[in-house]
Amino acid sequence: MISVDEAQARILAAFTPTGTEVVDLAHLAGRVLANDVKSPSDQPPFPASAMDGYAVRRSDGEAPRKVIGSAPAGHPFLGPVGPGETVRIFTGGVIPDGADAIVIQEEVDIVGGDVQFNASAMRPDFIRTAGLDFKAGDILVPAGKRITPRDMALLAAGDITEAKVRRLPRVAIASIGDELSAPGSPRQPGGIAASTGYGLSAMIAMWGGAPCDFGILPDNAQEIATVADADAELVVTLGGVSVGDHDLVQKALGTADFELDFWKVAMRPGKPLIFGRLGKTPILGMPGNPVSALVCAILFLRPAIDAMLGTAASQRTTSARLKQDLPANDGRQTYIRARLIHEGGDVWAEPFALQDSSMLSVLAKADALVVRAPDAPPAATGDRTEIIPLDGY
Amino acid sequence: MISVDEAQARILAAFTPTGTEVVDLAHLAGRVLANDVKSPSDQPPFPASAMDGYAVRRSDGEAPRKVIGSAPAGHPFLGPVGPGETVRIFTGGVIPDGADAIVIQEEVDIVGGDVQFNASAMRPDFIRTAGLDFKAGDILVPAGKRITPRDMALLAAGDITEAKVRRLPRVAIASIGDELSAPGSPRQPGGIAASTGYGLSAMIAMWGGAPCDFGILPDNAQEIATVADADAELVVTLGGVSVGDHDLVQKALGTADFELDFWKVAMRPGKPLIFGRLGKTPILGMPGNPVSALVCAILFLRPAIDAMLGTAASQRTTSARLKQDLPANDGRQTYIRARLIHEGGDVWAEPFALQDSSMLSVLAKADALVVRAPDAPPAATGDRTEIIPLDGY
Repeated sequence: MISVDEAQARILAAFTPTGTEVVDLAHLAGRVLANDVKSPSDQPPFPASAMDGYAVRRSDGEAPRKVIGSAPAGHPFLGPVGPGETVRIFTGGVIPDGADAIVIQEEVDIVGGDVQFNASAMRPDFIRTAGLDFKAGDILVPAGKRITPRDMALLAAGDITEAKVRRLPRVAIASIGDELSAPGSPRQPGGIAASTGYGLSAMIAMWGGAPCDFGILPDNAQEIATVADADAELVVTLGGVSVGDHDLVQKALGTADFELDFWKVAMRPGKPLIFGRLGKTPILGMPGNPVSALVCAILFLRPAIDAMLGTAASQRTTSARLKQDLPANDGRQTYIRARLIHEGGDVWAEPFALQDSSMLSVLAKADALVVRAPDAPPAATGDRTEIIPLDGY
Repeated sequence: MISVDEAQARILAAFTPTGTEVVDLAHLAGRVLANDVKSPSDQPPFPASAMDGYAVRRSDGEAPRKVIGSAPAGHPFLGPVGPGETVRIFTGGVIPDGADAIVIQEEVDIVGGDVQFNASAMRPDFIRTAGLDFKAGDILVPAGKRITPRDMALLAAGDITEAKVRRLPRVAIASIGDELSAPGSPRQPGGIAASTGYGLSAMIAMWGGAPCDFGILPDNAQEIATVADADAELVVTLGGVSVGDHDLVQKALGTADFELDFWKVAMRPGKPLIFGRLGKTPILGMPGNPVSALVCAILFLRPAIDAMLGTAASQRTTSARLKQDLPANDGRQTYIRARLIHEGGDVWAEPFALQDSSMLSVLAKADALVVRAPDAPPAATGDRTEIIPLDGY
């Protein structure tokens, strides 16, 4: 058995970024950039007013100004502002030649058609210099970043209409087990509905991959070996990794061109995890228990997808305080399903009483996994503990 | 001017949940349930083994057991287990009649074909009772919950093949301003690319709505009034809310059937916010500055979408420690763009030096908004402060 850290490192080492494709601006959200995207131009492209007011020359001091025109956004004033002159201007309007400050409209009096104000009204100048937001050649969004809605607005402001991104990594999912049938389909005695694959597909899509369903396979080496045909960057099997004294998936893959990297990780839930290569394709054999499989997905599949996207690991642990005592841990790293409670300016983790690895109802209600290191000493109520938040997945 | 809290409350009061539609299991992730989804059956449907081992009768004590058959998952053993008998069983296998404990395979010796073990090996029993995960009639996922990948697995396990969810709320976006043109299209002097709408569309989709682009409209009351034609549950306008002394959007809508709820919120960035009704359709007039508009979207549009989805508010504030001193605040609630730094088991918020509401580059880099209440006293480095994390949007 190897540690969780070693298993994560070995899995990460097995993946390289996928190829690229060019995607238009409107569809970039959630995609990962293959290259830095640089701005072709300055933003704003010209010195612009930050407020509604009057564009003035500072050197005129407090002398009244004569209004010679206006500069709304999108309609520049076409002449210079001379001594004693001003141009009515609006937020986003181009600063006319000769002007070097904006006096906001709240600070002026209109007297006999002239604009009057105190000298102090010319500080600050309320001018956005050309390139204040970004300059031509600046990196707007760096390679490897997963594009957020805010990045989308930034790219649009930089006149970017398309970008090169990583192709969605294809992850094939095969559910293994004679007991499985599709939800809603007739059930034989002793049968249950295949469930993990639905959760896993949704996680893969959320994490930036393209899930492909390889269906339900029986506990039969020949059938299981057909996963070698999956057209994917990664094959995930669910179940069949720990059946009695032998391992069906390993046995099945032995007939294909399978090279084992590791089997079994010192963790709970999820010990029987296989990782290896099937020809050129990495294969991750996950446990049949749905909770074990989904926890393994969070720990091992998400980093694999990040690696295929060429993006920094998005899994972040944080901390919370324990709502109850925990006993000393054994040699396996343990992930305890817990509710998070926001109380007194702090976050508390309250483990669920039942932690059986078949209980999807508990995992679905959980807000976080409390991480217990191998051989961790007992922990007391109020102690800070490492957690993996499960927001959204 | 009204407070942010009052503005949020007035906006929330204006929305009711959208109608419903039935969606099949594979497409439920991210949708919001209109009704509780209850399980039609127990899970597991039968008492099942939690381990690989042997199904035994406790009352036989330590007597050797004769193996009379096997019960892999999906293949129940069809007879009872009599005195002195045992059935080889695997994880997920049906507990045969007569058996009341599983002895795990690691605890047995096979002697002359018989299975031998110590009595202590029969505790715990490693039996998952029927309905351990959930029982027929239990609520699997409650009405109003946005379905996560884990919920998907749970619904599948409950044999749910479809569910009634809220229709995606349609949100029309109109970008207003003579200075605007689409990214990549030719630009007149003083013009800039329309950018906010791209970020806003991606946010709306991420928050569970259906964005519809109403395009770019000039600063012209007649053109702006055409937003009354949008086929949407909510119309959002960007810009045109504070042009000089008058408000173009209000003026434009005055010609349509517009009823103002409020105008101007005591906040920074984002003061010139309009909310009202256009006939039956709520309309949210947001500022033209992209940062102001996107901050207003986070504060006001997301709760509106939540209300239309009939789901609990998903905006959660949390806390961080300040990396620098902050001056006293004025009467407007202020949202400061900041980076979050994880250091020494704590989270620190470091405000960016430049906070201009035109600077999308700063908003895109920010991890959180630091919330400063109206008239907040100065804050010192190390003080805890309220933040709105911007994860993913």
